[in-house]
This record gives sequence, C-alpha cells and structure tokens, in this order.
Amino acid sequence: MANLKSKHVVWHPGVVTKADREAISGHKACTIWMTGLPASGKSTIAVALEKALWDRGVHAFVLDGDNVRHGLNKDLGFSPEDRNENIRRIGEVAKLFTTAGVINITAFISPYRSDRDRARAIMADGEFVEVFVDCTLDECERRDPKGHYKKARAGEIAEFTGVSAPYEPPVKPEIVVHTDQAPEAECVRSVLTYLETKGYIAPEA
Amino acid sequence: MANLKSKHVVWHPGVVTKADREAISGHKACTIWMTGLPASGKSTIAVALEKALWDRGVHAFVLDGDNVRHGLNKDLGFSPEDRNENIRRIGEVAKLFTTAGVINITAFISPYRSDRDRARAIMADGEFVEVFVDCTLDECERRDPKGHYKKARAGEIAEFTGVSAPYEPPVKPEIVVHTDQAPEAECVRSVLTYLETKGYIAPEA
Repeated sequence: MANLKSKHVVWHPGVVTKADREAISGHKACTIWMTGLPASGKSTIAVALEKALWDRGVHAFVLDGDNVRHGLNKDLGFSPEDRNENIRRIGEVAKLFTTAGVINITAFISPYRSDRDRARAIMADGEFVEVFVDCTLDECERRDPKGHYKKARAGEIAEFTGVSAPYEPPVKPEIVVHTDQAPEAECVRSVLTYLETKGYIAPEA
Repeated sequence: MANLKSKHVVWHPGVVTKADREAISGHKACTIWMTGLPASGKSTIAVALEKALWDRGVHAFVLDGDNVRHGLNKDLGFSPEDRNENIRRIGEVAKLFTTAGVINITAFISPYRSDRDRARAIMADGEFVEVFVDCTLDECERRDPKGHYKKARAGEIAEFTGVSAPYEPPVKPEIVVHTDQAPEAECVRSVLTYLETKGYIAPEA
C-alpha cells in the first residue's frame, strides 16, 4: 500500500513486557486480594479503593460477585468443589489483570487459606497483596445488609460462612483493615499507604 | 508518548463508571476478537497490534493460548463441550477487560459462529469487534510453524480445524485482514484505522 503511515510506527521487536506497561502507566500492577466474613466490608472498601486509585490516574478494577458470579462463574454453585473452582478461576483472572498492568482488587469471602494461598502461588513475588478485612462476627451480623445472617441462623441458608461454615483468617496478610473500628476512608488510606510505601504507586502529589 | 495518567478529571459520585475510565484513559474499550484457521497469523497480528496500541498510550492486552489455556482453562480438554466452555470463559474474561477499560485482543481459532456470536451477545453494542484473519488453508498449511497440520494430515491429531474439523468464517465481521496477501504491518494498520475511524482511539498525532 503506497500511503502506509508506517513512518509513524516504530516496530520494536518483541512483545509488550510487564516493565513496558509499568513504565507507560506510571504504576506497578498487583492483585489486592480482600478476604473477610460476609458483610465485613470487602466490596465497600474495594470500590472506594478503586475510585481513589483512578483519582490518581492508576488503572484499577474490582472483581466481585457482581461481575464474576453472574458471568464467568455462572456455571458454578456452592458445593465445596464449585467454591474451590470459583476461587481458582478468580485467581487466574486476577493474574491476567496483573499481567495486563492493572491493579485489580478481588472482593470475595474466600474463606479457605488453601484457596488464597493457591492464588498467591500462581503469581510472582509482590504481585499478591492479601488484605484481611477484619470485622467481628457480631458486627457483621448486626449489619447484615442482605439479611443472609438472619436466614443462616434460621437454617434457611446452609453452609453460610461464619455461621455454619468456617472462615480461616489469614496468618500473615500484607495488610489488615479493621472495618469495625475505623471508618471506610481510613481503611482505604491504609491500603494506599501500603501501595505507596512498597512502590506500587507514586506518593500523592 | 501519550500517558494513561490524566489529572483534573471531574468525578461523579459513586463508583468508577465506564465513561470515567474512558475519560481518564483517553480511549474507549472493546474486545478485538481475532478468528481464523490455525497458523493464519492471529497471534502475530494480536501481539503487534498490542504493541502499536501501547506505543500510543492505549491500554491493550492480548488473551491467547499462552496465558489462558495454561491458566484459567487448564482444566479443559478438546472435547466439543470443553471447546465450547473454553470460548465461553474467554468471552466472559474479555467482557471483564472491556468493562475495566482495556482494549483486549483475543487470539483463538474460535471456529464456531455460535460461540463467537455468544461472546458478542454478552457485550454492549460496539464492544465486540470481530476480526477475520483470512488466509487460505494452503498458505496456513505451508507455514505450519508448529507442525500441527502435518500431524493432522497423518492422523496424529484428531479434529484439527481446517483438516478434520470445520472452520466457520464470520458472515459479517467488522474487519477482515488478509495475512496471505498483506504484510503484518498493513494488517495491523487496518485494525488501527478502524479503531480511529470509529472513535475508539484518537487519530495518530
């Protein structure tokens, strides 16, 4: 083709590397893996964090029940095998987003240590940032925004985490936020400070 | 070079919307769905396109066999049901990337029209850009970089697309590139021109 605008395109050999993405985006990528009891505040913190990151020009994205359970994982139920597969896929998708240069934030109960550790294991060092969204069971149950605890106590929901199914808190998470003790903005600030301190994002101007 | 960072954006209250992401990133998001015979050049075009987009500061990402078949879809084989589920999941992940504001490029044979149409159906209008990577079977077979055609002809690979399994070309793809007639750079330019013309990305400065 005679009028190819090829003079404007520099064809470097090779693919776009992770370092290339970070250099262009101005931030590093990672998976911020939120874990905690139902109604502990994972999604609330995740969405507020996503907003705070975009406010700084950081490409962020929340993976949660709304966009995963009704799409990618809509074929999965709540049997032990399906819960396991649910978290496995979320870990793999989170890895793809990290590879793509996005700070992705997962907001799932993910009650089992082994499931979370498996997600950590498929990523490179520093790419998996576990955030324990700590909140007492009493407080989660008092909030109960969807009425799930009430139904679980009434026996209408089986194997409900915190009531009739176990929650295994992280042993050594990168970050702990106490949503029963600190306001949302402070919890978000804790995560941002971690990301700044560890060099994932630039300190606020 | 354009930068994904952009300051002084006026925020709406609430969550980060698709429009917010587009305003900050300076480009729209979509799934560029490459389809074509084995060895037609899908991955080559996809990787070069990804690079050309990043060169303009556009956040792009390739989903292909390397990062999907060995991760998210490693539990799937090549039975009809598994192939079907393979493409279903890829469509859902592509949708997530589009929602996240990334121009994502999928590079899979995806031989069945119904599978591709299903992926299109879960996205909003304009979010699914089908690219038919057209190349004659003779030329694909001549290239045969992995020796798969040879093995398929020898009966060592069953149900190989183009040889012993069907390939259904798109009826009305948004873009057709002829990798047996035009050099790689020209095929990439065709896609870029489409994205510019339709307003996904800004014209080259």
